[in-house]
Amino acid sequence: MKQSTFNKTDLSSSHIDRHRVVIVGGGFGGLCVAKELRRADVNVTLVDRTNHHLFQPLLYQVATGILSEGAIAAPIRDILQRQKNVQVLLGEVQDVDLKTRHITIDTIGFRSEIQYDSLIVAAGAKQSYFGHPEFAQYAPGMKTIDHALELRGRIFGAFEMAEREADPEARRRWLTFVVIGGGPTGVEVAGQLVELSHSIKRNYRNIDPSEARIIILDAGPEMLGSFPEVLRRRTESDLRELGIEIHLGTRVKSVDELGILTDSTDPNLQRIEAATKIWAAGVQASPLGRILAEKAGAELDRAGRVKVEPDCTLPSYPEVFVIGDLMSLQQLPQLAQVATQSGHHVAQTIIRRLAGDRKQRPFRYRDLGSMATISKFRAIGVIGKLQFSGFIAWVMWLVIHLARLAEFKNRLAVLFNWAISFFSNSRPHRVITSQQVFGRLALEAQPELAEVKSSPSSKANS
Amino acid sequence: MKQSTFNKTDLSSSHIDRHRVVIVGGGFGGLCVAKELRRADVNVTLVDRTNHHLFQPLLYQVATGILSEGAIAAPIRDILQRQKNVQVLLGEVQDVDLKTRHITIDTIGFRSEIQYDSLIVAAGAKQSYFGHPEFAQYAPGMKTIDHALELRGRIFGAFEMAEREADPEARRRWLTFVVIGGGPTGVEVAGQLVELSHSIKRNYRNIDPSEARIIILDAGPEMLGSFPEVLRRRTESDLRELGIEIHLGTRVKSVDELGILTDSTDPNLQRIEAATKIWAAGVQASPLGRILAEKAGAELDRAGRVKVEPDCTLPSYPEVFVIGDLMSLQQLPQLAQVATQSGHHVAQTIIRRLAGDRKQRPFRYRDLGSMATISKFRAIGVIGKLQFSGFIAWVMWLVIHLARLAEFKNRLAVLFNWAISFFSNSRPHRVITSQQVFGRLALEAQPELAEVKSSPSSKANS
Repeated sequence: MKQSTFNKTDLSSSHIDRHRVVIVGGGFGGLCVAKELRRADVNVTLVDRTNHHLFQPLLYQVATGILSEGAIAAPIRDILQRQKNVQVLLGEVQDVDLKTRHITIDTIGFRSEIQYDSLIVAAGAKQSYFGHPEFAQYAPGMKTIDHALELRGRIFGAFEMAEREADPEARRRWLTFVVIGGGPTGVEVAGQLVELSHSIKRNYRNIDPSEARIIILDAGPEMLGSFPEVLRRRTESDLRELGIEIHLGTRVKSVDELGILTDSTDPNLQRIEAATKIWAAGVQASPLGRILAEKAGAELDRAGRVKVEPDCTLPSYPEVFVIGDLMSLQQLPQLAQVATQSGHHVAQTIIRRLAGDRKQRPFRYRDLGSMATISKFRAIGVIGKLQFSGFIAWVMWLVIHLARLAEFKNRLAVLFNWAISFFSNSRPHRVITSQQVFGRLALEAQPELAEVKSSPSSKANS
Repeated sequence: MKQSTFNKTDLSSSHIDRHRVVIVGGGFGGLCVAKELRRADVNVTLVDRTNHHLFQPLLYQVATGILSEGAIAAPIRDILQRQKNVQVLLGEVQDVDLKTRHITIDTIGFRSEIQYDSLIVAAGAKQSYFGHPEFAQYAPGMKTIDHALELRGRIFGAFEMAEREADPEARRRWLTFVVIGGGPTGVEVAGQLVELSHSIKRNYRNIDPSEARIIILDAGPEMLGSFPEVLRRRTESDLRELGIEIHLGTRVKSVDELGILTDSTDPNLQRIEAATKIWAAGVQASPLGRILAEKAGAELDRAGRVKVEPDCTLPSYPEVFVIGDLMSLQQLPQLAQVATQSGHHVAQTIIRRLAGDRKQRPFRYRDLGSMATISKFRAIGVIGKLQFSGFIAWVMWLVIHLARLAEFKNRLAVLFNWAISFFSNSRPHRVITSQQVFGRLALEAQPELAEVKSSPSSKANS
């Protein structure tokens, strides 16, 4: 095993006595901590599995061809390049040693250990398939750039296949899209699928993309459970008006290449033939939560999140903080603003501790409201007791999302792409790469076709 | 085997007696034919393996983080959507039957047959490794979006690895980039690597990216063989001034994970330790050329191109045309303008034939000049007897490339990205996806690491 010890030698040599802050995760929470420590007398190391900070709320626009992945994924080192007390490392955390205070990271097989004085674990959450990880290959989630690009390939690939399909039943299957989960992500992606299917209408000769069947399934009795009833009703009627089928109280029993099985009592819904399935049903905390909890003797909640003290610290380890989607505290939701605010709290705690103030202050979450966009000109929003819907909510959504985009360059790129997409009604970003699973999956399900496909003698390139 | 016959039923039913033109390939040549037939009384079917028309001359900017893939890859059906006599199909040509006049296409295992009255084969060329296909995994080429994204991951991944590497020798290897091939593509990508390494200089703490070693190797005695000597000299001195090492008359003997072996007499060059290798050394015609030649009894040239009659038709098959990079005629080069002009010639031939004029007219190529860009503000160009270099050539390059970008939307996006990259000196598009080979390759070369990596019990997500 190759062991690199650069952190002890290279980095620490010049500032050997500075307080070392290690942040795991470059999402909303981790990035907030790093930024707020810019004037603190600390050495910050931020570790992330990817090289980019992802603006997750707009992932569905990458999947549906409006934005390029670069528009919502800013290089973390670019964002922090002026902050001289921060170094960024690409790597996956393999282990945490709470006794000797170091983490072990791995990058494509190369490991190193990083010492910390304060550790902030902001490793986030990933898609949850509720005990059925095998669904993932047939119904990708919406948490990473890889997911969005995979879905982009499947969505545009499905229209391609429908265009060249003669059998009406198979064609119908290619044109059926099932979104599992009726939360904000599910609503946004379903709404976008409708817009998409209209905007590419004239691209085809044999099919009418706007006849695509778009279905939202949710196991619960209500969509958008966190929103007030008036807005939930409004959204539901807006979605139905767009032509989206909504089936509540419907649980997915299994997912396969060609469709899904549900527990519906309606015989027409027990089996839904659908080539494209999108999983937007839930999240589970990063596996790092379990490692932390085991080592610290802390508890996990049902979603795998680490139960923390009121000041976001790990029980018995005041130098270790857990924030954002990985933190279980006062039943706070897994939202960007919880991540950012808990990041702010932790950064301020570290700054105060360095000044000698070790008093514990509880993290207080301030709900700034929530929003979901349904389609062009339609959204819903709640700010305190105020409720918004329709056009005004949509404008608010636009302004708030532009303001929240972390990087200036990205913000311009997003605005530019929105303008193009808005005025030309087009989807410029729809490359299907040959790495896309869209093709491979179909073959796995039909071995006799795979055989033909893999015979090189009969193949030629077009 | 599933057989779809939609083309005989769906498409042809309404226009049963129209002349059927089938075009294989949506590159510069194929697209030109389709567009010029817009007013002709024909049914056009354009088949491509991908869903996009690729502006290959700017691929190196996708690889180096300036442009998103969507900016240079326009959906073919979007470009042709107003042209009602064209249908676009995603598929790979598996076979051509010259007797019964149909081609067989395959899309992820689904096959269909398409009848033609005129067939235009514009399937292009792919990277050539001169009999060493095993080099491809270590030294990706620059012909497709997949290549560019793969190289993007490797290039930015190499800087990431260098940043976390303590061993000076290994760090040097991560910071060494070898470009194999000194043609326009090799020159452009090497020049961009220099600019890139300067523009991300302040992103790192442990390395200075601008110390990256960038090497061009070429087996021939001269770089940019097709340009006049004055410009070749100028380019060589410009490149050396940028800090690029150039080694001519140096053949690559083998490529592996960690570097390359050459036939150089200089002991320092016999083994070059380099993590990132980029293959820009040559192209070979699409395998479809061989199928066509075998069936028609036609000849292939050394590059696998089909030798055609002076009017671009396949010998003995006047209804079959071969154009662009797949065509061997009068030793014409494999350039976009040859593809476009031969496409124009063929479209006009078809239009004249439909009007009853079956006279054979030879294709005459008109050289409009050639260009290569070296770095910001520096390029070279030849138009007829005029030679340009430096700033003026760079401005010409800029204007000509913007003008040639197929689609209005793309052109704006490219201009916008150039402006951002130019003024902010940044590289906004540098997502490394988890599908990227950058990681997997390192593991294949070091099995003992792969073992650690694949052990799920010791893994956690950050």
